Amino acid sequence: MIDCQILYRVADTLNGRKGAAPESSYVASLYHKGTDAICKKIAEEAAETIMAAKDKDRLHIVRETADLWFHSLILLSQFGLGPDDVLAELHRREGISGIDEKKSRGGA
Amino acid sequence: MIDCQILYRVADTLNGRKGAAPESSYVASLYHKGTDAICKKIAEEAAETIMAAKDKDRLHIVRETADLWFHSLILLSQFGLGPDDVLAELHRREGISGIDEKKSRGGA
Amino acid sequence: MIDCQILYRVADTLNGRKGAAPESSYVASLYHKGTDAICKKIAEEAAETIMAAKDKDRLHIVRETADLWFHSLILLSQFGLGPDDVLAELHRREGISGIDEKKSRGGA
Amino acid sequence: MIDCQILYRVADTLNGRKGAAPESSYVASLYHKGTDAICKKIAEEAAETIMAAKDKDRLHIVRETADLWFHSLILLSQFGLGPDDVLAELHRREGISGIDEKKSRGGA
Repeated sequence: MIDCQILYRVADTLNGRKGAAPESSYVASLYHKGTDAICKKIAEEAAETIMAAKDKDRLHIVRETADLWFHSLILLSQFGLGPDDVLAELHRREGISGIDEKKSRGGA
Repeated sequence: MIDCQILYRVADTLNGRKGAAPESSYVASLYHKGTDAICKKIAEEAAETIMAAKDKDRLHIVRETADLWFHSLILLSQFGLGPDDVLAELHRREGISGIDEKKSRGGA
Repeated sequence: MIDCQILYRVADTLNGRKGAAPESSYVASLYHKGTDAICKKIAEEAAETIMAAKDKDRLHIVRETADLWFHSLILLSQFGLGPDDVLAELHRREGISGIDEKKSRGGA
Repeated sequence: MIDCQILYRVADTLNGRKGAAPESSYVASLYHKGTDAICKKIAEEAAETIMAAKDKDRLHIVRETADLWFHSLILLSQFGLGPDDVLAELHRREGISGIDEKKSRGGA
């Protein structure tokens, strides 16, 4: 079982790149472009995850999901949030089935 | 810092629902519908994450990212994969900047 | 060659359902739910178009593209726009290659 | 009312670029990269349409919808299809409400 502290280390690295010169790294350039550019990457990585699944290409599914989570962490960081917020939300839902959870939010 | 073992507990729960009667839970019904239905949910949750970001609604961003990761875990499980595969991939990339990583894959 | 007035007839029908009782039709219920619900459908239909393309299923590609355009028309109507606005934009771009067009907008 | 023959003229132009040298135009380079690259653009343009809607930016909504339809036409052409197939499908559905249509396909 992989040490999941990696999520926190990635988040720390990301936070350290906020405000850095856009040309210094891919992540710094994304923060510089702003929320729309980050959101566009999330849409793109979600599409690539879907295409990897349609290809039944397990290596590709793992890589694209990692890209998707990575860009999710960038978006969270953009709003002063981090992996602990998402993990806490998943923890909060434990034991609540998806169906009940949706009901309790009045959702569909 | 939240105990990130939650990802593994969620994955265990998901694996336990594979093959269960579709009407027994939301997750069982998704597995029953198959890969396309799971992929559709990933597209939907990515869009909801983007809309929450456009609304600058931090609570909503956390909830939708949790939904996105949750459905990513369902897709991984569908292919016999799990959070350790994604975390290992993020670990492998540590210290490689996004720009260098893309270069090393010949990507764009 | 199909008479493309169909786009205008669809737009007229859609406009006629704005403000109708939500339970009177699928379209009326979407308008009632609002912009986020319409956007979610666009994300979903885009994903289904992509999956149909991955399946190389030509009948499905046509159906999902029709769904995508149909929900685009709903979104346009939601903002007092219509197919003529999109067709005029495509007309304006005629003779401008995609690459030049992107340059002229300073885009990427 | 704009002459909707523009859809057919765009489709003709697109068909003429299939097989052209990738560096000759944006569209030729997309065909050269293949179906996944075209699908990725559809996901991206759908996301940009959604973001324009969230911004309530009417000019932007029109431009992004035009981008979305344009890349849909590229995908159709990739599979030997064209705007007439989509328009015929919309025509076929005329008078069938969305709710009934979904029922007749057994869909949701």
